Amino acid sequence: MADDLKKGLEGVLVAESGLSSIDGDVGRLVYRGYTIEDLARGASYEEVAYLLWHGTLPDEEELAEFSDAMAAERDVDDAILETIRALVEADERPMAAMRTAVSMLSSSEPEPDADPADREASLRKGRRITAKIPTILAAFERYRQGEEPVDPDPSLGLAANFLYMMTGEEPDEVAAETFDQALILHADHGLNASTFTSMVIGSTMADIYSAVTGGIGALSGPLHGGANQDVMEVLIEIDESGLDPLEWVEQATEDGRRIPGFGHRVYSVKDPRAKILQERSRELAETGDSKWYDITTTIEDYLTDEKGLVEKGIAPNVDFYSGSVYYQLGIPIDMYTPIFAMSRSSGWIAHVLEYQEENRLIRPRARYTGPDERELAPLEER
Amino acid sequence: MADDLKKGLEGVLVAESGLSSIDGDVGRLVYRGYTIEDLARGASYEEVAYLLWHGTLPDEEELAEFSDAMAAERDVDDAILETIRALVEADERPMAAMRTAVSMLSSSEPEPDADPADREASLRKGRRITAKIPTILAAFERYRQGEEPVDPDPSLGLAANFLYMMTGEEPDEVAAETFDQALILHADHGLNASTFTSMVIGSTMADIYSAVTGGIGALSGPLHGGANQDVMEVLIEIDESGLDPLEWVEQATEDGRRIPGFGHRVYSVKDPRAKILQERSRELAETGDSKWYDITTTIEDYLTDEKGLVEKGIAPNVDFYSGSVYYQLGIPIDMYTPIFAMSRSSGWIAHVLEYQEENRLIRPRARYTGPDERELAPLEER
Repeated sequence: MADDLKKGLEGVLVAESGLSSIDGDVGRLVYRGYTIEDLARGASYEEVAYLLWHGTLPDEEELAEFSDAMAAERDVDDAILETIRALVEADERPMAAMRTAVSMLSSSEPEPDADPADREASLRKGRRITAKIPTILAAFERYRQGEEPVDPDPSLGLAANFLYMMTGEEPDEVAAETFDQALILHADHGLNASTFTSMVIGSTMADIYSAVTGGIGALSGPLHGGANQDVMEVLIEIDESGLDPLEWVEQATEDGRRIPGFGHRVYSVKDPRAKILQERSRELAETGDSKWYDITTTIEDYLTDEKGLVEKGIAPNVDFYSGSVYYQLGIPIDMYTPIFAMSRSSGWIAHVLEYQEENRLIRPRARYTGPDERELAPLEER
Repeated sequence: MADDLKKGLEGVLVAESGLSSIDGDVGRLVYRGYTIEDLARGASYEEVAYLLWHGTLPDEEELAEFSDAMAAERDVDDAILETIRALVEADERPMAAMRTAVSMLSSSEPEPDADPADREASLRKGRRITAKIPTILAAFERYRQGEEPVDPDPSLGLAANFLYMMTGEEPDEVAAETFDQALILHADHGLNASTFTSMVIGSTMADIYSAVTGGIGALSGPLHGGANQDVMEVLIEIDESGLDPLEWVEQATEDGRRIPGFGHRVYSVKDPRAKILQERSRELAETGDSKWYDITTTIEDYLTDEKGLVEKGIAPNVDFYSGSVYYQLGIPIDMYTPIFAMSRSSGWIAHVLEYQEENRLIRPRARYTGPDERELAPLEER
């Protein structure tokens, strides 16, 4: 039994966690007991971060204190902005730029020598990271546009402030609320590869900057983050093809292309996050361009009803609708995965803090399949 | 069985690997079939990197080509040097500075858009990283000393060139060879936490920069890297105490202090790497200061013979002797862990490339222990 190979660790329990629970058979996701539907409707991203980190939702006073602290921590050092500018000049990709800039945040950490086992200090560090990530991403986007970064506005919540810093204009209420919900929906999702990366790093009692930097690296992989961007690129391709979406899908399927945004290792039914984002996409379509909403729902209905994909356990996942929602909000396509990371940072931090409370170094084994012991020949005799 | 909690993943097989094999009961470590003793004696760090990445030791022609390519790739972009300078000005810790600078290397990658499944391209990227890390670390140290970085010398091997770039002076043969051996001994060691971190990141098909950056983060944790630095700090404390080393150890043991550099999750006998480094420490002592060699062997003999630690499965590990070897080579104490990472980068890269050949996304599970589903109260009613 101990010698069974557990490649991919599918189904292997590596920790106990009170953070999120996923029922993939019924399409249910809760954070600390609250359904994702209730949280999207009744809380802000800051409240959800507080919930993940502290175990309970904040009351009015706690929320005010927490939000004020985070708003006060949004500024990023000039040296870090300089590095972001250099990364833009070098044409660095957004996720890689984000990885470098977030790693660099530790250089302005006011408590660099805090004991890594000091949970309160780690929490403050984590809060600073989550507060500063939007500033990093918005600055990156501004530099790409040939503009200077916009200073954070402490009167705005994290979601609205990000849109403001990225565009220079305060978002309307619908946009701010939609984006806030999208962040809530991506904040945590069990031990996915990036969260597990953060935990493995955290299990060495490395600091939270190392854990989050590692999580960003893992999320940059095409098998993990990135699918929301793929979905949007396909939707644009469909639109530009001039074909009827169903014709396009038929053709793509015949060509052996996979439609991104369908299927998930954990869900065999429609991802509950996709349902909420679909609804937001519909609302955005009412006042804006309904094209993307129409294409996505047409494809989903077709694949579900006519092709019976759901019976095969393949249903729309969160990426199928998040891409078009972000597009409708005017966010550049290659920023979708960084935004996913921006949201997920709160989940990574929560898992690391939780794991470190009863820490055990994560160190698995490999079955050696290399050559038997052999003689080393000197260089000239090889 | 599927519901057994595998916290720490101790003994869990997560992959097959032909890279390194450890027999902790007899103290044996091999890389691809070659014992660590043979490799330390009969190969250079470049040959070992080639072995790990290509599966066989290079012949003369292959080695010349490989070494020349790596020597040609040592330069680091000015923008990265500027960021390293800014990190020094911000008083950043060496491992954190290394994490940021290595992450930033991807911005000068000549093949940023290579398919992550293109093994040859990933190998070239990995080679560039391993070639450039010594330049990064040496530049960091030079800036700290208030000096400008020293340009790499392509006529020197990786180990000698690092010492040269750090000090501005070409090392003597003994120093260069000793340091080369230390790098060989640290190049790979099964699925330790940093290597496993790199693999989890690589399993998303993220690029090798993300994987190595994550490995550095994991190695920065006090439960993983860092023990060689702890050993040296204790040796200095003993020396400065004016006490006989055994008196000091007795006192420390009574005070409940753990002597760093003893014990390892994998070895129950003396770490084979410690034996080799002890021998090098003895040689360095012949021409230099014998103090550190004397203190370490005195402590080891005492704990082993009189305290019977080895019978309890607690024996000297690699860190017990690497610290004093680095000290005798004049390397600043807080650079020991970065040097460990510099060496281990070849192992991280080798494991990621090997795993990605038959890749499976690493995604374990957690047992949910949080609250049952609960109602969300509006903010004002909490």
